[in-house]
Amino acid sequence: MNQKIVIVGLGLIGGSLSKAFRKYTDCSIAGIDSNPEVLKAALSCGAIDKIGNDEDIRTADLLYLCLYPQADIDFIAANLDLIGPNCVVTDACGIKSEICTHLPQMAKEHGFTFVGGHPMAGKEKSGFAASDADLFAGASYIIVPCGAPQSAIDLLKAVAAALGFGGTVTTTPEHHDQMIAFTSQLPHVLACAYVMSPRCPEHNGFSAGSYRDVSRVANINEQLWSELFIDNQGALVEELNTLIANITDIKDAVAQSDGETLRALLRKGRQVKERLGE
Amino acid sequence: MNQKIVIVGLGLIGGSLSKAFRKYTDCSIAGIDSNPEVLKAALSCGAIDKIGNDEDIRTADLLYLCLYPQADIDFIAANLDLIGPNCVVTDACGIKSEICTHLPQMAKEHGFTFVGGHPMAGKEKSGFAASDADLFAGASYIIVPCGAPQSAIDLLKAVAAALGFGGTVTTTPEHHDQMIAFTSQLPHVLACAYVMSPRCPEHNGFSAGSYRDVSRVANINEQLWSELFIDNQGALVEELNTLIANITDIKDAVAQSDGETLRALLRKGRQVKERLGE
Repeated sequence: MNQKIVIVGLGLIGGSLSKAFRKYTDCSIAGIDSNPEVLKAALSCGAIDKIGNDEDIRTADLLYLCLYPQADIDFIAANLDLIGPNCVVTDACGIKSEICTHLPQMAKEHGFTFVGGHPMAGKEKSGFAASDADLFAGASYIIVPCGAPQSAIDLLKAVAAALGFGGTVTTTPEHHDQMIAFTSQLPHVLACAYVMSPRCPEHNGFSAGSYRDVSRVANINEQLWSELFIDNQGALVEELNTLIANITDIKDAVAQSDGETLRALLRKGRQVKERLGE
Repeated sequence: MNQKIVIVGLGLIGGSLSKAFRKYTDCSIAGIDSNPEVLKAALSCGAIDKIGNDEDIRTADLLYLCLYPQADIDFIAANLDLIGPNCVVTDACGIKSEICTHLPQMAKEHGFTFVGGHPMAGKEKSGFAASDADLFAGASYIIVPCGAPQSAIDLLKAVAAALGFGGTVTTTPEHHDQMIAFTSQLPHVLACAYVMSPRCPEHNGFSAGSYRDVSRVANINEQLWSELFIDNQGALVEELNTLIANITDIKDAVAQSDGETLRALLRKGRQVKERLGE
């Protein structure tokens, strides 16, 4: 690959994308970030070729939005006149309904292409310092076309293949957000709720892999995730209600010493997990 | 170490203990299991020296109970007359109140020593086939003295050091069970409740590390865990009520688009996690 890339926002995801483009492609990479220290760090480690300016936006083949959802929308709104007709704009937001309400419309009116994307990788640390060229190794890249032409979808598929992703899936904003409420948002809610137990500060010496696994992502960026949770209110609240109901069923069986019901509930869980594997 | 060990129950834990004694000590190991195929497998891979008989129980320095809780109690009740005055009996149960109600009393009446123990390791697979000499590497070994003499406690500490455990902690049955409700039982309840979501069968392509972590232990042995949950009813129900209340607080903030409360709740989770580290 040999495109002109502009990456807006060099946090964990933007920084990892720029390092991966550097490591695995011949693309030229211009970086934009509100923090001059981050730009300096990205330049000095070679993650970007240059600090992006208006001319870079004008001539970009691919513009990656890697800010928070509302900031992504604001960035495009402020730079509408710069974006050229051959530019494909994409994003990396964890929630798609909000961004896909605004950007496809702006793209249509101003004659560029928008295709939504969600590189399904993360870490319990944030910021450029935590970014890693191999963050996406084997991960899924979700593409949300929002009416984009096939050529733009194919470009993102080529990016996914070049950067070491494990595969791509294509879906609608609504289905994306419903699935992400279950696979990603719920575990983050859970991790925070879990470590709030009065027993948590004493866990040392009494804990093993299960504690580590459930609590891992409690180390959350509360600004980003609050925005993502509220943007996906409907699906997330439904998912949390389902979880609370399922926990309550198991709790009631335990409280009533109802071994038969308890075994049936746990068996149901085991069978789902066995059927689905990892 | 050079003791005569009898291990009763060669499942995941008993099998791993026998393999670890074999690999890291010079102990002689007799194994007892109701399944002849398991005994054959344990003999043929060298995990045990011999199939245990009455004479092995009579002359044992250390007798390890690695059955389910009630079966451990039943085994001792059925073999009371065989156990010698120098024998230290210990167990590997995940819950201690029940076993520590019965075994210290039996030990006192029949003139042997009982000290409770909980090697804090596990796997999402069970049975001898999943056992591993290095299952305990770096894990915590919880010792529950129940009035045992210091020499018996020191013996278990020496075992923990020899077998590669990361350390030992000593506590009461009640505190053990309260902590385990939080660190281990709750994550198992959660994993089963989580995978019961109607979204679960579609997770492929939409999931990453968080889904994997929360769902991992859903592959549960429902016979064993039902018994452990009901034996620890009080502490587990309290812990589940705490979790449900904490999830509900976050859910309500999301449902009301109350960003300030939501950020404060997530921040609280993050701060606990930061303070405690892994």
